[in-house]
Amino acid sequence: MKKFFLLVLVASFIVSCNNNSVKSGVLVTDISELNASIEKAQPGDIITLANGVWKDVEIKFKAEGAVNKPITINVETPGEVFIEGVSSLKFGGNYLVVDGLHFRNGYSPDEAVVIFRIDKETIANHCTFTNSVIEDFNKMSRDDSDRWIQFWGRHNTLSNCYITGKTNRGPTIRVDLKGNEHISNYHQIVNNHFGPRPPKGGASGETIQIGDSYSSMSPSYTMVANNLFEECNGEVEIISSKTNFNEFRNNVFYKSEGSLVTRHGNYCTIDGNYFIGDGENENIGGIRIINTGHWVTNNYFFNLKGKSFRSPLAVMNGIPKSPLNRYNQVTDVVVAYNTYINCDAPWQFGVGQNLAQKDVLPASEIRSARPLRTIVANNVLYNEVGAEKLVVEHDKADGVIFKSNVVNNQGVPFNDYDGGIQNVSFDLSEVGENILVQASNLDVEAYKGFEFEKISKDLFGNSRNSNNSIGAVVNTNASSPSILDKSKYGPSWYSDEVEASEAKTIEVTDGDNLQEKIDEASNGDIILLKDGVLNVNKSLVISKGITIKAENVSKTSLNYSGEANTPLFELHPKGFLIVESVNLKGNGTQQAFASLKENMYTHFGLSVSNCEITDFNFALKAYKQSFAERITIENTSISNCNNGLELSEETNDRGDYNTEYLTIINCKFNNVNENVIDYYRGGYDESTIGGNLILTNSTFTNCGGKEQNGILINTRGIVNVDISDNTFKNNPIKLVALLWGAKNNSHANNTISNSGKIVVEENLKLKLMY
Amino acid sequence: MKKFFLLVLVASFIVSCNNNSVKSGVLVTDISELNASIEKAQPGDIITLANGVWKDVEIKFKAEGAVNKPITINVETPGEVFIEGVSSLKFGGNYLVVDGLHFRNGYSPDEAVVIFRIDKETIANHCTFTNSVIEDFNKMSRDDSDRWIQFWGRHNTLSNCYITGKTNRGPTIRVDLKGNEHISNYHQIVNNHFGPRPPKGGASGETIQIGDSYSSMSPSYTMVANNLFEECNGEVEIISSKTNFNEFRNNVFYKSEGSLVTRHGNYCTIDGNYFIGDGENENIGGIRIINTGHWVTNNYFFNLKGKSFRSPLAVMNGIPKSPLNRYNQVTDVVVAYNTYINCDAPWQFGVGQNLAQKDVLPASEIRSARPLRTIVANNVLYNEVGAEKLVVEHDKADGVIFKSNVVNNQGVPFNDYDGGIQNVSFDLSEVGENILVQASNLDVEAYKGFEFEKISKDLFGNSRNSNNSIGAVVNTNASSPSILDKSKYGPSWYSDEVEASEAKTIEVTDGDNLQEKIDEASNGDIILLKDGVLNVNKSLVISKGITIKAENVSKTSLNYSGEANTPLFELHPKGFLIVESVNLKGNGTQQAFASLKENMYTHFGLSVSNCEITDFNFALKAYKQSFAERITIENTSISNCNNGLELSEETNDRGDYNTEYLTIINCKFNNVNENVIDYYRGGYDESTIGGNLILTNSTFTNCGGKEQNGILINTRGIVNVDISDNTFKNNPIKLVALLWGAKNNSHANNTISNSGKIVVEENLKLKLMY
Repeated sequence: MKKFFLLVLVASFIVSCNNNSVKSGVLVTDISELNASIEKAQPGDIITLANGVWKDVEIKFKAEGAVNKPITINVETPGEVFIEGVSSLKFGGNYLVVDGLHFRNGYSPDEAVVIFRIDKETIANHCTFTNSVIEDFNKMSRDDSDRWIQFWGRHNTLSNCYITGKTNRGPTIRVDLKGNEHISNYHQIVNNHFGPRPPKGGASGETIQIGDSYSSMSPSYTMVANNLFEECNGEVEIISSKTNFNEFRNNVFYKSEGSLVTRHGNYCTIDGNYFIGDGENENIGGIRIINTGHWVTNNYFFNLKGKSFRSPLAVMNGIPKSPLNRYNQVTDVVVAYNTYINCDAPWQFGVGQNLAQKDVLPASEIRSARPLRTIVANNVLYNEVGAEKLVVEHDKADGVIFKSNVVNNQGVPFNDYDGGIQNVSFDLSEVGENILVQASNLDVEAYKGFEFEKISKDLFGNSRNSNNSIGAVVNTNASSPSILDKSKYGPSWYSDEVEASEAKTIEVTDGDNLQEKIDEASNGDIILLKDGVLNVNKSLVISKGITIKAENVSKTSLNYSGEANTPLFELHPKGFLIVESVNLKGNGTQQAFASLKENMYTHFGLSVSNCEITDFNFALKAYKQSFAERITIENTSISNCNNGLELSEETNDRGDYNTEYLTIINCKFNNVNENVIDYYRGGYDESTIGGNLILTNSTFTNCGGKEQNGILINTRGIVNVDISDNTFKNNPIKLVALLWGAKNNSHANNTISNSGKIVVEENLKLKLMY
Repeated sequence: MKKFFLLVLVASFIVSCNNNSVKSGVLVTDISELNASIEKAQPGDIITLANGVWKDVEIKFKAEGAVNKPITINVETPGEVFIEGVSSLKFGGNYLVVDGLHFRNGYSPDEAVVIFRIDKETIANHCTFTNSVIEDFNKMSRDDSDRWIQFWGRHNTLSNCYITGKTNRGPTIRVDLKGNEHISNYHQIVNNHFGPRPPKGGASGETIQIGDSYSSMSPSYTMVANNLFEECNGEVEIISSKTNFNEFRNNVFYKSEGSLVTRHGNYCTIDGNYFIGDGENENIGGIRIINTGHWVTNNYFFNLKGKSFRSPLAVMNGIPKSPLNRYNQVTDVVVAYNTYINCDAPWQFGVGQNLAQKDVLPASEIRSARPLRTIVANNVLYNEVGAEKLVVEHDKADGVIFKSNVVNNQGVPFNDYDGGIQNVSFDLSEVGENILVQASNLDVEAYKGFEFEKISKDLFGNSRNSNNSIGAVVNTNASSPSILDKSKYGPSWYSDEVEASEAKTIEVTDGDNLQEKIDEASNGDIILLKDGVLNVNKSLVISKGITIKAENVSKTSLNYSGEANTPLFELHPKGFLIVESVNLKGNGTQQAFASLKENMYTHFGLSVSNCEITDFNFALKAYKQSFAERITIENTSISNCNNGLELSEETNDRGDYNTEYLTIINCKFNNVNENVIDYYRGGYDESTIGGNLILTNSTFTNCGGKEQNGILINTRGIVNVDISDNTFKNNPIKLVALLWGAKNNSHANNTISNSGKIVVEENLKLKLMY
């Protein structure tokens, strides 16, 4: 079926005709009609996808539009055309536009969901993917790598899209420059809303990566502007710029756990961006600088508490004569006219200095080359609580010049770097949500560095020609743009805001129909178990957010009689399970909780409180490639189990691990034979700040008797570990824990009797990832 | 004395006013007058240096000219103003011109002779050094490094200069990019005549170096165009391009022993250059490619016989993830529309592949990364004698695509790379001296690679738009520019051509006045010794080119009675000595020949034939930092000496050595105790192709008895060694020679009896230089 009709253009194209007149188009209802239409498309043509779900479609948009006469694929009604299943979109040719798609419930069979080439010979130029959504379009397993948008060619655009939920390996967006057809590409990534990307639990979780070390010598000229990055927490780099002459302008980084990093490549411009923290989360970073000639100007940093790699401005040490894929020395960087509000010690130099590790790392991994010819000038700092240090020198900042910077540090003294940072008392004025600037222009003459006259506008775009001032904002009367107004970003037809619905409570008294009730429940609902024993003989599948709780503590048991090596609770992708006040009992051969063995295409989560877990083979078994952002066990006992919490399957030593936060508070472990807590991250990777264990106020008795590695609490490779206020008693084990001194591992106030000891090793030897 | 006068401008400035009208200027006669005039100079002013020698002047030209109104320093009469002694010129400011100087008989006290900045803050921009000469302005010793022209800042020009004779360490010209003030500099190096630069005997003898590995990420945009490079033999790199976006256009490389090398940095343009060889000398190279994105187009290669590093087109293997200062992989290189006449196998890929050395070198020195995405298209080859191979694969050329290339290989079969090199019979036509092109356009369709349409002109500047053809030249009727017409290069007032004068012969009968007669002689004259014994009691100083010969072989002796450890002949800089048919006799404590111990600010040379050298401590002693391009000993005997030919003082292992060519033919060595022949180059340096020993038809008897290293002919580190047709008899030594198999070391037809043996070690372990 094919019908011709008149289509009124209402969508706003980035590449569009100047006249929004009525155009004739063609409505297509399946892939073969689409292919036929593409094949005969002429400049100016519009092909419209009919409403509905397009399943398993691999669209190859190969055509030739023209300047001001693109060929466009759009949708009958924005928001009513869904691309699902095994699907992808490839552009090949010139002046092509795709507008209004919604990718969901599926994954790409290819290197990416949207690809700006069809094959090596058929490359896209001047093509646009706009006004569309891609959500949760993950491959079936975390290690199955892809991107969602893969740029090739030149002058292509990603605009006004909403993109969220990538959990598998690979940057959400990658620009590829391998080949002369792809350099000096002037791609535009503009006006998009990058919604939450949860922590990946290892490297290769960037939101945008531009090039790679192998193309790091190439000019890219990619523009990333006016985007909102919201909770882009995939890994330590939100944007990894790896090529030359890229520009990052007027983006908003909102509560995103990571940084904009000039990882490779040189001479990038980072101007007029907003980095907004919450005043607490130390994972929310700013800008991390490596390499030569970057200009960091007119940026605004608010409430950031990140340190070292994640500090508001982290300027790294390089490796002398660095290998191509490691850390070049920083030189010729300009940091000027930025404003830092409540960022404590925003400037950190020599980040990554690791001379102490020279016995465990090869010389080609030692970052000892300090920044050179770097200037920090005309910046404004305000700390509502004065900081002892404004500049942290991980290595000497002797190649950095400070000029005409001003701080209100509330009178707390600081190193002023030969007068380069002046103490000035000034007030702030709030000119917008999260935007505080000095209340009036500061009477400090701006330093005129080489080519500083090219910094001609301020954060809000106002001219600096007259009445210039230091700091990111010149005209303190100006009102700021509403940077968190989400209607400014992403598709015109889509909102990510979900209306909160009241949670339902579903009562269950019988184990036999528990699964049925779980299936009936909606995301966020509560299954309420009555007092008594419920017998369960088959794994309970959890694939949504659900709470299972008993009315009273210790009055309700789930007795599991399923097969050996099957879990009572089988945690599927998107299975976020809260269990409260229920006793879980097995027959010694099964698992209380386990992920799927495969196809964990997105995260699970687990919270257990006020429970007793007894007689299982494993209390928790996380299989390889499964990942939970948080696993929390509180006020719970685990006893008579062969294994405890087993999160150590990521043994490929590529930096991956099974959970970001493992939190164990006020728990009791009795008679757990091995893998009592086994939490592993392998591979030396200085920039992934991975894994967090909090273990407090807990008691371990008669545990670890069969532990082959001789360590009760095994945390090898985990970066943040806090073991405190616990009691270890009568555990027949060599070590209670082996901690990594160089990282954020600590122990305190533990009572240890008739057990092993806690040992801290400063520099653990790990397999190099690079 | 200061006089004001009217000055008629006749010199052609690169940056000049449009009207060549009469201008008022000031004539200055000494440095204080010059300084005073500079201090008050205004845009458009001209300061004229009075004729004569300006000795020990350090000119700091700090002033502010304006667009089209430069401030100029020129000379009263071109060719009559000489800068001598300890002198230099520094520019600081904008729009300054220096025109007509002649630097000679001296050296700079600074990093360079001409420097485009006065200090770190006072940098030159839009300044020009033009129409001038710098000759032999060497520092006093070879290791005392400098440049002659040091570029800083932006938009500076070196034009129409004649520059020759640099022998000390350091590139003749260097462009420095360290600091944002110096990047994207658009310097112009144009219309110069680079006269002979003799081999330096080690690294750091480039004629032009643009940047270094530490600034190799920076954009430079330096233009090197329309220059003549004549016998620029300083080292293996004539031009070492180490930054990005440089352009090399329409230069002539005439019998220059080296190559244009893209050593670091990327995306350079090498277009329309001429590489002219002599059909024999294998040291004359072409273009050597490292890194990414270079375009090699419209170049003409004639009679080049270089191989490997010195081949007409050498595309290197890289080191995987190379350290910054080593070898990046070649990618995305275009080699199109070039013409190669009589270059045998002009295309060599994987040059520098050294997998065989992986046992003696660290992994970070192994070049195993083959070129990627490289295209060789639309080139024309002609071999008057067909070559077996047109392409030499030092490693597999599997990342190289050949398209639409044509060869006339005289019917000799060759690998055609899937039809990418076609066999076509065609004739040549001579369109200029050394310029032969295909007699008519070839009927082969040009391959249209990505952006090949940008190759819009041919070698002679003719359009390729219509009637395009493969090869460097489109219009076979066009006459070529007279590329070797020296009046097109260098200063208008200077010629490097010296009128040959008839050599004088001066007869000498008495040793006492021998030095006097040598001093009287002119360069090239002959001192003729009569039969008999001449007694010499003081070293004879040789500081010019001179021949000392006897009328009859074996009839004349020089008996030396000078002090111990002094030489009979003391070879000073520019001392080029030929000794023929004279017997030299010492008392066992002195040297027959020796260089100065220090201040060897330029080369010496030595040729000895038909002589007998007896009873010296050393036959020849070359001190550290002395260098001879050639030392030749023929038909001569050396006997009863403690040491023979000692050329092994360059022990700093930076790749230096004491002579380029050591040639020993038909000589006899008897009773020479140690250092019989000791010729050393230290330091691993794969690209310096350094040192040449030819030892043939000679006899060694009873030699080496005191040799501590156990090697009779010690050639450690020397790259080219040929030991053949010699006789070694009764030498109490372990090894006659230890040869370096991986390099060009060979031995043949030697008769060895009761002596050591000759051993070949494939890979010598040397100290790494980098």
